[in-house]
Amino acid sequence: MSGFQLLLVAGTHGNEINAPWLFDQWDKKPTLIHRSGLNLNKVIANPIARKKCQRYIDKDLNRSFSPELLENYANKDLETCIARELVLENGPRGNNPSQIVIDFHSTTSSMGTSIVVYGRRSVDLAIVSLIQKRLQVPIYLHEGDDSQNGFLVEAWPCGFVVEIGPVPQGVIHNKIINQTLLMIETCIEEINNVINNNAIFPKQLIIHRYFKSIDFPRDSSGLPNAFIHSEVQSKDWIPLSIDQNIFANIEGELFKLYNYSKENDLVPVFINEAAYAEKNIAMILTKKEVIDFQTAWAEDLYDLVNI
Amino acid sequence: MSGFQLLLVAGTHGNEINAPWLFDQWDKKPTLIHRSGLNLNKVIANPIARKKCQRYIDKDLNRSFSPELLENYANKDLETCIARELVLENGPRGNNPSQIVIDFHSTTSSMGTSIVVYGRRSVDLAIVSLIQKRLQVPIYLHEGDDSQNGFLVEAWPCGFVVEIGPVPQGVIHNKIINQTLLMIETCIEEINNVINNNAIFPKQLIIHRYFKSIDFPRDSSGLPNAFIHSEVQSKDWIPLSIDQNIFANIEGELFKLYNYSKENDLVPVFINEAAYAEKNIAMILTKKEVIDFQTAWAEDLYDLVNI
Repeated sequence: MSGFQLLLVAGTHGNEINAPWLFDQWDKKPTLIHRSGLNLNKVIANPIARKKCQRYIDKDLNRSFSPELLENYANKDLETCIARELVLENGPRGNNPSQIVIDFHSTTSSMGTSIVVYGRRSVDLAIVSLIQKRLQVPIYLHEGDDSQNGFLVEAWPCGFVVEIGPVPQGVIHNKIINQTLLMIETCIEEINNVINNNAIFPKQLIIHRYFKSIDFPRDSSGLPNAFIHSEVQSKDWIPLSIDQNIFANIEGELFKLYNYSKENDLVPVFINEAAYAEKNIAMILTKKEVIDFQTAWAEDLYDLVNI
Repeated sequence: MSGFQLLLVAGTHGNEINAPWLFDQWDKKPTLIHRSGLNLNKVIANPIARKKCQRYIDKDLNRSFSPELLENYANKDLETCIARELVLENGPRGNNPSQIVIDFHSTTSSMGTSIVVYGRRSVDLAIVSLIQKRLQVPIYLHEGDDSQNGFLVEAWPCGFVVEIGPVPQGVIHNKIINQTLLMIETCIEEINNVINNNAIFPKQLIIHRYFKSIDFPRDSSGLPNAFIHSEVQSKDWIPLSIDQNIFANIEGELFKLYNYSKENDLVPVFINEAAYAEKNIAMILTKKEVIDFQTAWAEDLYDLVNI
């Protein structure tokens, strides 16, 4: 039997409760999802935060996987300890190793079913190409943003985040459950296809790469004093014109995109994600990029799964 | 000058952030809302929970106003202490007394702009009649539910809750802000009309009175194992047929309304409110009631405001 194993993670943020709920149902009925012989492991990353329905207890678990944090044993906050244990137990050289990890999140933004990749690792691009080909999901490429690092999937040789929304924190929603289930099944099928040499890669991959984060306008005490403009609220993935109103305050004052960037064709994502206000992010602006699929990506992925 | 004062409350739940945000803007610009000479006081009830963006720290503040709790000084949890101080400071016999209180909330349920009254106090019914006449808002009458008590507004001789949704916890949403603003302005105008003897009461009041709360189906360990059916999700205030599917589980098993009640024409409210899962409430079923307006209600209200 192959030494390859896929790790599925849910509940990295304790108030994103749909994927963990689905994992619970799957535990109770192991045939819920057809796995076609694929070696699978699944884990609820932060059960303590989940129990409290909070994003985290001490700090954001999904910013706790940088090598500096993990290797500095003076850091004893809950989430660093969880990160360390997850890597020791389930990491690529862990006791129960996996080579690919998929981390299932939800968002208050209207992202639909979407994927987030961190940097341009060939194996990540290969596998999300297969998912995009099947489901036409948009992909956000996080790169060149030094203020955000230490993401869970970066501690594995291959992995990506699934973001599904909109859904409030702490709410199980039938649509989000169904979208999460479809993504789990699709990921399993496509990884099985790679293992069985049946994968058909697309010619191109469409990504939206990080361009800039925009914070809310804030008053002198640091509190937001404007809100997302109604023309932009819930319009994730829809390109902005340069004179688009993006914020408004209570007195009707408008804040235009050109005050933040002179670029054309910027595409907003994570608009009004509840958890990002504390990170000073009202939305993330991206640029669409069409990338020719590289044979080397597929080769690297085959090398990874055939162990 | 009249001894009457209106108290406006926001942030009773720390993660319902739209009304507190609006209060902050109002503080910065006192002319934001025209008050027509009405004596007004406003307070953010739980600033500590607001700072943490949590519903509460120790227990639900909006279940902490029962006389038994307030008068038992052995209770020292944060929210009981806050409740006690609010009544001592802003209650009808407080240092800075108000006779009417309006408590502004938001909800993840699709309640639109709505009002909640607790029991059938004549003065409450009089004033919400005026608001309903102006804005056609639906009114939920909470009565006969012993499992829920100690609501903030019950500590004042007159008061009601405004519930506006859907909005995720922790998200400022342009629509919710505008709806909250309109309600504040309308309440001020109508109370001014009463004071100035210009109020025109309607002939009838439409309420939806509490009939029954329904919990999620749960597994043997007490966790929900079904979700709100797609046909009911986001359909607050829309009457249910007796054979309506109200829950579904991941295997497609359906849970019909008639398993919970044989009543016809039940109307669901607070469907999938995030904070109610811990209270074992997936939705509240109500019955519509049309009540003839009683002159005595208006007389009691005139007595209350003319002090």
